[in-house]
Amino acid sequence: MCTPNVIEKVRKRISRRNLIKGGAASAAGIFASGCGSEPKAKLNNTPPDSVSFNRVVDLTHTLHPEFPAWFVPGVEHKGGTKTFLPPAIVEVERVMKFEEIRVNLNKVSYWEHVGTHMDAPSHFSEGSTVDKIPVEDLVLPLAVIDIKAKAERDPLALLTLEDIKNWEKKNGPIPERACLAMNSGWANHVKTPKFKSLNSEGKHQQPAFHIDAIEFIKEERNVVSIAVDTFSFDNLHSPESDVHYSWLGDERWGIEIVNNLDEVPALGATVVVGQPKIQGGSGGPNRVMALI
Amino acid sequence: MCTPNVIEKVRKRISRRNLIKGGAASAAGIFASGCGSEPKAKLNNTPPDSVSFNRVVDLTHTLHPEFPAWFVPGVEHKGGTKTFLPPAIVEVERVMKFEEIRVNLNKVSYWEHVGTHMDAPSHFSEGSTVDKIPVEDLVLPLAVIDIKAKAERDPLALLTLEDIKNWEKKNGPIPERACLAMNSGWANHVKTPKFKSLNSEGKHQQPAFHIDAIEFIKEERNVVSIAVDTFSFDNLHSPESDVHYSWLGDERWGIEIVNNLDEVPALGATVVVGQPKIQGGSGGPNRVMALI
Repeated sequence: MCTPNVIEKVRKRISRRNLIKGGAASAAGIFASGCGSEPKAKLNNTPPDSVSFNRVVDLTHTLHPEFPAWFVPGVEHKGGTKTFLPPAIVEVERVMKFEEIRVNLNKVSYWEHVGTHMDAPSHFSEGSTVDKIPVEDLVLPLAVIDIKAKAERDPLALLTLEDIKNWEKKNGPIPERACLAMNSGWANHVKTPKFKSLNSEGKHQQPAFHIDAIEFIKEERNVVSIAVDTFSFDNLHSPESDVHYSWLGDERWGIEIVNNLDEVPALGATVVVGQPKIQGGSGGPNRVMALI
Repeated sequence: MCTPNVIEKVRKRISRRNLIKGGAASAAGIFASGCGSEPKAKLNNTPPDSVSFNRVVDLTHTLHPEFPAWFVPGVEHKGGTKTFLPPAIVEVERVMKFEEIRVNLNKVSYWEHVGTHMDAPSHFSEGSTVDKIPVEDLVLPLAVIDIKAKAERDPLALLTLEDIKNWEKKNGPIPERACLAMNSGWANHVKTPKFKSLNSEGKHQQPAFHIDAIEFIKEERNVVSIAVDTFSFDNLHSPESDVHYSWLGDERWGIEIVNNLDEVPALGATVVVGQPKIQGGSGGPNRVMALI
């Protein structure tokens, strides 16, 4: 599925990665040194450019058959010229039972984009599937922009370029090779109808990224991944999925429906994206953690 | 599924965890300070007991329909008094296709214990499912014992108590709250029949843990997880799955079919187990990484 266009995008990203890495320095190492505007004096006895942490925060929701679904199970969904009849959000069928044979084992089935999950480039492009994302890209400095106040007032609130500029005034430039996350407070609504906030036409309402913010972090910053605590990077302000096509189409990826962003700082945590390495995957449920 | 017996085991483990943690110290922090026999002088400017790394190693195999399977798809398997007809090891059906509707999305199905994956306590007991394992238990100091030389000579080689003692002579006691991994070299055979090493009766042969080694690390060390680069913690030397029942039955867990253990040191790396948080899961495919 690699067109010349995709190959060129990958080539550019690799060049950029190497340029930023420089010589033998590691990806993780570099992101540490890129966190501030000036390298800090090194007094520690750990290798230069290393990342440190002393606790772990789970950024993952538990996935179960009643978890909110974008595609309502059993209800027809129109995509392009096709209609789809999505099944249960996740099926966990206990094939082997401890009480019968002293072993438990489930058959698990899902359509990939459920629960806390990755959108790989291939979800909205001919780009990389989950198994092709370099492992060093799954461990990134985490920058969190809080838009809870306006999201409280408006379920269609957007994370704008102005929000990024205001964040940078306080925290400095978004770190090199970051994961940039939107904290809209939506994770707290996951057990209530507010998570979907259906409008009078039955369409989802939820906070998302403004396309101008996306273009800025593509062109002016070196952001590897975006993350949202809602269903989608897009909302009804971009009904043609502009953010998905722009971001994933540029051989980048993201995470949707993350949890617990209130428990991590605006800057300083490291996100680890535990994405199962299923060949050909366009994304799928994973374990996202923050090291602090 | 929590019997009084399981509750008691969990209570004991929690007491042990708290005892080891002490006060406000974090799990990750503690394992750093527990890595050597004496706390090292702290010259760094990071918080005490923090863990540092500057690169990432992927310990995960890519999972695809031709990946070696313990249960051969389409062949009857006897478990207790039941027979099972396992399906393909993993099915990835492209439900939505970019070339048709500008979106890719797969339906993914698997029986849980395929590819690089976790065995949760519930796989061989009435203990915890994957979603109930505390997140701080998914980030652990990694100790690797190399038994490649004897595994090269004997596909039924075992990691013994003597191997642990020899490792400890060089490296000191297994770190507190470790993941103890067996490196038998089997990951290098994953694309050849040697990975299964079927005997004349068609039964799998592969290196595994000796039950005495397991009882030692249960009773005398504080090991949270075990890991193997083969199909199973047990082999034909323990045909009744003694290791599984002893280890998982003690409210502990492990990882099977890990990759790339040659690329991590015997001591000093931190393993991160990116286990999707699927309610009721007895294990399943995940992303395992080492931070070094």
